Amino acid sequence: MAEEFEKPYVIGLDMGGTNSVFGVVDQRGTIKAQTVISSKAYPDVNDYVNAAVEALQPALDLIGGIEFVKGMGIGAPNANFYTGNIEDAPNLAWKGVIPIASLFEEALGVPARVTNDANAAALGEMTYGVARGMKNFIMITLGTGVGSGIVVDGNVVYGSDGFAGELGHAIVDRSVEARVCGCGRNGCLETYCSATGVARTARLMLESTDEPSMLRNLKPEDITSFEVFKAAEAGEKVAKDIFDFTGRILGQACANFALFNAPEAFVFFGGLTKAGHWLMDPIAKAYEENSLMTYRGKARLLVSSLNGSEAAVLGASALGWE
Amino acid sequence: MAEEFEKPYVIGLDMGGTNSVFGVVDQRGTIKAQTVISSKAYPDVNDYVNAAVEALQPALDLIGGIEFVKGMGIGAPNANFYTGNIEDAPNLAWKGVIPIASLFEEALGVPARVTNDANAAALGEMTYGVARGMKNFIMITLGTGVGSGIVVDGNVVYGSDGFAGELGHAIVDRSVEARVCGCGRNGCLETYCSATGVARTARLMLESTDEPSMLRNLKPEDITSFEVFKAAEAGEKVAKDIFDFTGRILGQACANFALFNAPEAFVFFGGLTKAGHWLMDPIAKAYEENSLMTYRGKARLLVSSLNGSEAAVLGASALGWE
Repeated sequence: MAEEFEKPYVIGLDMGGTNSVFGVVDQRGTIKAQTVISSKAYPDVNDYVNAAVEALQPALDLIGGIEFVKGMGIGAPNANFYTGNIEDAPNLAWKGVIPIASLFEEALGVPARVTNDANAAALGEMTYGVARGMKNFIMITLGTGVGSGIVVDGNVVYGSDGFAGELGHAIVDRSVEARVCGCGRNGCLETYCSATGVARTARLMLESTDEPSMLRNLKPEDITSFEVFKAAEAGEKVAKDIFDFTGRILGQACANFALFNAPEAFVFFGGLTKAGHWLMDPIAKAYEENSLMTYRGKARLLVSSLNGSEAAVLGASALGWE
Repeated sequence: MAEEFEKPYVIGLDMGGTNSVFGVVDQRGTIKAQTVISSKAYPDVNDYVNAAVEALQPALDLIGGIEFVKGMGIGAPNANFYTGNIEDAPNLAWKGVIPIASLFEEALGVPARVTNDANAAALGEMTYGVARGMKNFIMITLGTGVGSGIVVDGNVVYGSDGFAGELGHAIVDRSVEARVCGCGRNGCLETYCSATGVARTARLMLESTDEPSMLRNLKPEDITSFEVFKAAEAGEKVAKDIFDFTGRILGQACANFALFNAPEAFVFFGGLTKAGHWLMDPIAKAYEENSLMTYRGKARLLVSSLNGSEAAVLGASALGWE
């Protein structure tokens, strides 16, 4: 049997602060088996890796064993592709530098690679999703924060230190009213265009108008981007205004981002994309209005085609093919 | 004789709207011979290529003939690396799409490649200059406009269409006072940080204050960035303020650019860099203040080490080694 048929599976690990989801994935992006362990229950990372290997065993038995696995990909916070380490991740139980890739390589006997979740998402779209066949595109993840994965000539850009591609922290407002960001600076894209940024916009807009809105029935801290979406669907002007504001800032920012790699597409992913045309239309409008002539009309603005709950594992698994 | 010793030279062509400068360059970046023809005198591009080959002959004789030339690199406006064409260059005599690379390949019998001048400058720095050995950096050219060449993993980023890397057209001001740019939009980096942008700033600052200045002895349209430099050297506050303003905008913009490829360095080139510390100090200050923590203190801010008059030819020639 030729090598390419011998190892038709990869393992993907989506490591979050709470849970670690493992999937065994085939070349088409079908998750053949999935298992979950706690990310928090193992103060010693060696115990975590042992628990992971044990939990994976039934899934590996299902596909005929680890000898059918080409490699493992890990999407984790503060993960460095070059070193294979997780470095000082504030949301994980293990402090300092954790050589997570080599720990799994030793435990499983297959090559393992790590990257952060937005880069993993970009790899997932390129391997199994809407960016299949694309060589130059930009992935934008719209969740609690705004993440990005930049692809140039078919490769994710890791930069000089492995931490390139943090477009969510592009400063888009330098005025005195710029929003405070968790990174310690002001005016970052993610303070406006993340799911939490949309909720922030909603609270501010509701304060500044008398427009009636079902959002006023909620406590301000209970307003989410999904509640804003429901209000938009119900025909509320204020909800539409919130998405117009968000989409305009994101479209303007993407027009600047396009100057780097003249992308074939931007691929948006994450909870906020559920807002659909309420968000995508103002993004498209602002993108076209703000694009340099050379780039106008060239990049497609796409939404991820991967199933939301599977996308993170699929994205991580894509690294296993490399 | 081994292949690497057989072809120790490349030809570089710096094609401007007025003149075309050709250089025969060795592996250390020494220009062994140089020749110039007019870019404007040949309405038919075939005549231009023939004139070029004739003008190059003495230089080629000097190194032993075209058989010692590995390749030719051409830096030209609106040049597309992928196609080898010059496409609709407004400042050249030839309209439409000109297959300049293949015309020279046929005429000389060596491989020829084209790119724009800022990308050529990046290649020049990487091959012969301060970026030797660097895999990830950003070249910023500060001339009549602001150009850029972005290097990722040792390669210039050309993007999906060959026209990536136009950071001079990043919109850095979206306010109503944003400066009008030649590209048809407002607030582009180059309206502030090019040599002409500095002159524009000087005129505005002189109007808005009563500060005494030797610049007031000039007609407003005669103010250049070099005159501002002389005023700064003479200790004038207004000149220092002009460079502080320019450097702050450029440093802020570079902090955003760093999010893409986490560069080892920014390399600045062009007439404006003659302003030295008057410009570089405020760039460095704004860059550090505006950098995301992950990147702070990592990128070096360098000025090109290539001789200004030779840099364009050297940069173009670097493409000949590829």
